[in-house]
Amino acid sequence: MAHLTNEEQLVRAIRRRFPESGKGLLRLALGDDAALFRPRSGYETILTCDWFLEGSHFLRDKHPADAVGWKCLARAVSDVAAMGGEPRCFLLSLALPKSAGGKWLREFLSGLRRVSKALGCELAGGDTTRREEILINVTVVGEIRSGRAVRRAGARPGDQLFVTGTLGEAELGLRMMRKQRGMAGVKNPALRKHLYPEPRLAVGQWLAEKGQASAMMDLSDGLSTDLGRMCTASRVGARIDARKLPVSALAKGAEAVELALHGGDDYELLFAVRPEKAAKIPEQHGAVRLTRIGEITAGRKILVEDKSGERRLVAGGWDPFRSGRRGKERKG
Amino acid sequence: MAHLTNEEQLVRAIRRRFPESGKGLLRLALGDDAALFRPRSGYETILTCDWFLEGSHFLRDKHPADAVGWKCLARAVSDVAAMGGEPRCFLLSLALPKSAGGKWLREFLSGLRRVSKALGCELAGGDTTRREEILINVTVVGEIRSGRAVRRAGARPGDQLFVTGTLGEAELGLRMMRKQRGMAGVKNPALRKHLYPEPRLAVGQWLAEKGQASAMMDLSDGLSTDLGRMCTASRVGARIDARKLPVSALAKGAEAVELALHGGDDYELLFAVRPEKAAKIPEQHGAVRLTRIGEITAGRKILVEDKSGERRLVAGGWDPFRSGRRGKERKG
Repeated sequence: MAHLTNEEQLVRAIRRRFPESGKGLLRLALGDDAALFRPRSGYETILTCDWFLEGSHFLRDKHPADAVGWKCLARAVSDVAAMGGEPRCFLLSLALPKSAGGKWLREFLSGLRRVSKALGCELAGGDTTRREEILINVTVVGEIRSGRAVRRAGARPGDQLFVTGTLGEAELGLRMMRKQRGMAGVKNPALRKHLYPEPRLAVGQWLAEKGQASAMMDLSDGLSTDLGRMCTASRVGARIDARKLPVSALAKGAEAVELALHGGDDYELLFAVRPEKAAKIPEQHGAVRLTRIGEITAGRKILVEDKSGERRLVAGGWDPFRSGRRGKERKG
Repeated sequence: MAHLTNEEQLVRAIRRRFPESGKGLLRLALGDDAALFRPRSGYETILTCDWFLEGSHFLRDKHPADAVGWKCLARAVSDVAAMGGEPRCFLLSLALPKSAGGKWLREFLSGLRRVSKALGCELAGGDTTRREEILINVTVVGEIRSGRAVRRAGARPGDQLFVTGTLGEAELGLRMMRKQRGMAGVKNPALRKHLYPEPRLAVGQWLAEKGQASAMMDLSDGLSTDLGRMCTASRVGARIDARKLPVSALAKGAEAVELALHGGDDYELLFAVRPEKAAKIPEQHGAVRLTRIGEITAGRKILVEDKSGERRLVAGGWDPFRSGRRGKERKG
């Protein structure tokens, strides 16, 4: 259809793209008042939701609809990875203008379907309405064996801090995209991490299952902001070594470090490991690099050191209520 | 605070209002990557979500923030009532302008907290961001004993159709509110059902537990629209008697019937009962009236009869993709 003329039409378009919905672990899905999910015995249910709003989180003329479909689910699933869990199903709340009912919706659903398959996270239901701007909210339901979930609050002084993958590449992609005209290319490797983030499910599950991590979270708003949150939750401080940060190969020099410290949207995992276990953390898990970047300290300060000395690290990542990014460091 | 200056502030304001969150059935709530919920053994999990958007579902200058807080959760819980389940917890996604961080947020959280207590539905987590318009999305997690959930699709010809409470009163309240200037009065009894709907949890649970209802749904978009959905899902038709509709005591004559047929937002339950069980449905359950309004038929037509004969009932309730309400009946 080119234009949506009623709500049932939109629900039908979604259902056509997810024909298997409700046939697996869900007893019924789209098309009833609610979805029914069968929890596994001995498991806890993980619940998380995420806004993904036109103008705030993506731009209709810059971000391909396919990437919007991918990213809206991938970033919500990242919160399940951050607990060490497995995603099971999701609810899609979608508000669309009539004009987005054709090509945009088709491409959006195509990206959403691909990521849903890739992450093993089935569409369970949702809510649709009409709106001049595209509004998306995704709720993800995951599972984890009872008592295995890794929280933010478990870090203790002496714990070693690790991150997965590289840091700053999503932010670098965003900067590049802003400088270009028109729609971002879905195949541009420099934009891959900004457009198609991949939640670190396997690493998260492995750390939780083996009891390796004392605290864990995903890096959505930038290391300087998110590390602050982990330290606040755990009532500790931290010291990180800027020279050890796994910067993106696409970034250079001081910008690479600044991106790694403050860039958002990477969806890598940040985790703490008790000192006696830290030596057992390998350099890779599957294809994902694991890098020790520093340690938890007893004070409440967050410090970053490099060859010129030690400075206080101030949160410079994304906060929608601030008028931009701060990205400053003060002398500690 | 009068104005929000960062996101943590907003999360703290919510957490202060829900200090017990995460202390009951939830192992952890606000302030981690995700919430952990312990499902009960032998139960299925019910999942549902609902948009509640400024401009689409409420007006900031007409609807008191307290009522916005109440209604955004009450209407989502109504979907759990419609399956026969019990609500357990909810996720709140809230996008707010800086200017709504003071009085509006306080009153909103006050209404939300009251309904959360009244319905036994605990805040588990959520997501916050900044936006010029107030955007709300609520996900409710409920539970029901395995195999007891009542779907829309179970109605068969000969089943008797019932509704709870009265119909049309929420729409009548909306019409009255539109004629008045300024903010709606939270104590105006004529606006009660529009501002503070009460999901029919006890009736829904009783029907599901006793296996009384063959099909059930809640009336959110008006009887003519929602009955059509139940009939489509069950592949049946229906005949209702306009003279039997439990119209609001506040409405008169033809308008009362029209409101009962097409008015949205009542959050009453519509349910079908096998003919041999219909006589056992009492006239009241607790304080809630139960009224037989018609029956399921073998054809696919939906008919309404009154003293002047039988007509085809055309959906006239709320659909955001249509340009208003149709509310027409054609000769059947």
